[in-house]
Amino acid sequence: MLLHPSSKSWLLSWMAAPRDRVAGFGRMVWKVGADDPRRVVHGLKVALALALCSVFYYVHPLYDFTGGNAMWAVLTVVVVFEYTVGACLYKGLNRAMATVAGGALALGAHWVASQSGKEFQPYVLTGSMFIMAAVATFSRFIPTMKAKFDYGVTVFILTYCLVSVSGYRADEVVFMAQQRLTTIAIGAFICFAVCTFVFPVWAGQELHVLVARNMDKIAAAAEGCVEDYFCDPDADAGEKPARRALSAKSNGYKQVLNAKASEDSLANLAKWEPGHGKFGFRHPYGQYQKVGAAMRCCAYCIDALAACVGSEAQTPAHVKKHLAGTCLALGRHLATVLREASGSVTSMTRSDRLGLVVADMNATAQELRDKLRCLATVLEEGEDEISEAEHEQNAVTELPTPPLIEALPLFSAASMLLEVCARAELVIGA
Amino acid sequence: MLLHPSSKSWLLSWMAAPRDRVAGFGRMVWKVGADDPRRVVHGLKVALALALCSVFYYVHPLYDFTGGNAMWAVLTVVVVFEYTVGACLYKGLNRAMATVAGGALALGAHWVASQSGKEFQPYVLTGSMFIMAAVATFSRFIPTMKAKFDYGVTVFILTYCLVSVSGYRADEVVFMAQQRLTTIAIGAFICFAVCTFVFPVWAGQELHVLVARNMDKIAAAAEGCVEDYFCDPDADAGEKPARRALSAKSNGYKQVLNAKASEDSLANLAKWEPGHGKFGFRHPYGQYQKVGAAMRCCAYCIDALAACVGSEAQTPAHVKKHLAGTCLALGRHLATVLREASGSVTSMTRSDRLGLVVADMNATAQELRDKLRCLATVLEEGEDEISEAEHEQNAVTELPTPPLIEALPLFSAASMLLEVCARAELVIGA
Repeated sequence: MLLHPSSKSWLLSWMAAPRDRVAGFGRMVWKVGADDPRRVVHGLKVALALALCSVFYYVHPLYDFTGGNAMWAVLTVVVVFEYTVGACLYKGLNRAMATVAGGALALGAHWVASQSGKEFQPYVLTGSMFIMAAVATFSRFIPTMKAKFDYGVTVFILTYCLVSVSGYRADEVVFMAQQRLTTIAIGAFICFAVCTFVFPVWAGQELHVLVARNMDKIAAAAEGCVEDYFCDPDADAGEKPARRALSAKSNGYKQVLNAKASEDSLANLAKWEPGHGKFGFRHPYGQYQKVGAAMRCCAYCIDALAACVGSEAQTPAHVKKHLAGTCLALGRHLATVLREASGSVTSMTRSDRLGLVVADMNATAQELRDKLRCLATVLEEGEDEISEAEHEQNAVTELPTPPLIEALPLFSAASMLLEVCARAELVIGA
Repeated sequence: MLLHPSSKSWLLSWMAAPRDRVAGFGRMVWKVGADDPRRVVHGLKVALALALCSVFYYVHPLYDFTGGNAMWAVLTVVVVFEYTVGACLYKGLNRAMATVAGGALALGAHWVASQSGKEFQPYVLTGSMFIMAAVATFSRFIPTMKAKFDYGVTVFILTYCLVSVSGYRADEVVFMAQQRLTTIAIGAFICFAVCTFVFPVWAGQELHVLVARNMDKIAAAAEGCVEDYFCDPDADAGEKPARRALSAKSNGYKQVLNAKASEDSLANLAKWEPGHGKFGFRHPYGQYQKVGAAMRCCAYCIDALAACVGSEAQTPAHVKKHLAGTCLALGRHLATVLREASGSVTSMTRSDRLGLVVADMNATAQELRDKLRCLATVLEEGEDEISEAEHEQNAVTELPTPPLIEALPLFSAASMLLEVCARAELVIGA
C-alpha cells in the first residue's frame, strides 16, 4: 500500500516524536549523572550492600545461621540505605532503637495477654495495639519528635504490631524476635559499613559546601545587580525604558531564597554523624542554619534591589553618574566581604582580612551616605539656577530618590552582611 | 537526718525541674492536639485500620485464607497510611505498581536463572539484582521520577530483591508472590477505606486553605506595616529613634516566606486525589503553586517595607504627614484587594467586586504618585523661603525619600498584587 506523501511525513514525524522524547530523556539522565558522579556511585553502593546481604542466602553455613530470616537483612538495607552518611545513621539507629523498644513492649503485652486466658487474649492484644498505634501516630505531630524520631515511630508501630499480632499464632515468639533482631543487625551493619567506607557522602560536608556556595552566589548577585543598575549610562532619562532583564550572574540569589528546606534537613542529618575530616562530633551545625537564615535576609534585600533595576521609573543618567562610582565600589566591597567570608567558612579559619574588608566596606558605605547628602544639595541648587517655574519638569528631573532607593537596600544588605560575617566568625570560632 | 534549709530548697528545685519539664511537655502535646483536633483523629484512624488488619489473625476462616501472610497487610497499613488522602493514595498506588512490576521482573529473572543450571543460578540472580538495584537507585535522582515515584522505586527494589533472593530457597515462588499480593491488596484496601471515609483530610483542600490563609496574612502584614510606619506622628524629627518593633500583625508575612516546601508537597500529593467536594479530579493545583510564588514575591516586598519601618533613618513627622493619609489609604486598599482575592479563592467564584477594589487601589496609587511629585515641589519652595545657607540642615530636613522608598515597594507590591489577582482569577476560572 502506497502512502500519500503528506501522511507519510506525518507518520515520520509521529515516529520521530517519541524518539526525540527518548533522546531528551536520555540527555537529562546523562546530565543528572554528569552533574554529580557520586549519584552513580550511590547506586552502585546500594547494589553492593544488597549483594552482600544475598550472600546469606547462597552460602550454606550462613543460611543455616540466619534460618531463612535473611529477608529482614535485605529489607533493612533497602529501607535504611540513604545518600548521606547522616541520613543512613539516622534511619539505622532509629530503626534499631524502635525495633528493640517495640519488640520489648510487644513481648510484655503478649505476656499480659497470655495471663488473661485464651478467650480474652485477642481483645487484650488488639486493645493494646489500638492504644499504642494511636498514641505513637499522634506523637509524630509533636515537633521535637518529628525532627528526630519520625522514622523511628513508624518502625516502632510496625514492630509492635507484627510481634504482638503474629505472636498470637506463632509459639516461639521470643526466639522469632531474637532471630529477626540478629538479621536486622546484620543488615544495618552491612549498610553502615558500605555507606561509610565506600566513597562516603557526609551530610555535614554537603551543608558546609552548600552554605559557602550560596554565599558566593549572593556575592555575585549583589555585585551583578549594582552593575546592571549602572551599566547603561547612555539610557534616555525621562522616558520609561522597557523592563531590563537581569544578567544571569545576578539571578543566582533566587536559588538562595529556596534553599531553606535542604539546609534544614542536612543540618538535622549532620547531627547524627560521627566526627569526620575537619568536622568534630559536636560540630555546631546549628550555626550553619543561622548563617543560612541571615543569607536569606540578604537575598530578600537583593530581590528588592533587583526590582529597582527592573523598575520602570529610572533615574536620569546624569543623576546616576554622581553615585555610580561609589555605588559600584560599594557593590564590589560587598562582594569581596562575602567572598572572604565564604572563603573563611570553606577553610574553617578565622580570616584576618575579613575585618579589613569589612572596614573598607563600611568606609565606602559612609562615603555613599555623604555623597547622597551632597547630591541632594547640589540638585536643589542646580534647579534653583536653571528654572523655578517649570515645576512639572523639575519634579521629573529632580527626583534624586531612585539612587537612594537603590542605596538603602544596599545599606540594609550591608548591615545584614555585617551580621552574617559576625555569625560566620562564630561558626569558625566554634 | 535534718537538711539545711538552703540544701532543702535546692533539693526541692531539683525535684521541681523535671516536673516542670514534664508539665511543659504535656502542655505542648495538648497544644499540638488542640491546634488541630484532626491530628488526634488521625491517630485513631491508624489504630482502627490496624485493628481491622489484625482481625485476619484472630478469626479462623480469614486466617486460613491468608495463610499466615497477614503480616504483609499490617506492614502495608503502617507504611502506607498517611495524614492526607493524597499522600495515602500516592504511597498505596506506588506500592502496588512497584510490587507488581518488581515481582514480575523478579519472576522473569528467576526463570532465566533456573534455565542456566543450578551452578550458575546464584551468580545470575545476584548479577541481575546488582544491576536492577543500581539503576533503580540512580533513577531516584532524576527530578521527574523523584517527584512522582520516589517511594515506588524503593518498594520496587525491595520486592525485586525479596522475590529473586528468597526464590532461590523457597520452591513455590509463584504461589508465595500471589499470596503476598493478595494480603498487600487487602491491607491497601483497608487503608484507603479508612483514610477516605473516616473524617478524610484532603491534600487539595489543605492547599486551598493554606493559600487563602497566607493571602489574608499578607493583607494584614501589608496594612500593619504601613500603619506602623505612620503610627507615631509625634516622634521627634532629626534624631534617630530606636529600632521600632513591628506589631504582631505585621509579622505574619514571615510564615509566607517559608511556605514553599509545604505548598509544593501538598500540590504534588493533591494531584493523586480523586474528585472530592468542590474539587474536580483535574483541579488545577499547579495554579496554587503559581499563586504561592507570586505571594512570596509580595512577601519579599513587605520584608523590604518592614526594613524601612525598622530603619534608623526616619523622615521628619511633618514630611510624613503629607503622605500619611494617601499611604494609609493605599495600604487599606491593598489589604482589601488581597482579602477580596482570598475570599474569592475560598469560595472559588469569580468575584465582581475584585475588579472594583483593584481599580480603587490603582486610583489611590496614582494619587500617591501625584502627591509625591507635589511634595517634592512643595519642599523645594518651602526651603527656598526658609533658608538657603543651612545646607546641612536642609539635607536632613529635605529628605523626602523615605516616603517614596516606603511607597515604591508598595507600588511593586501593588503590581504584584495585580498579578496575583489575575492568576487567582485563572484558578477560579479553571
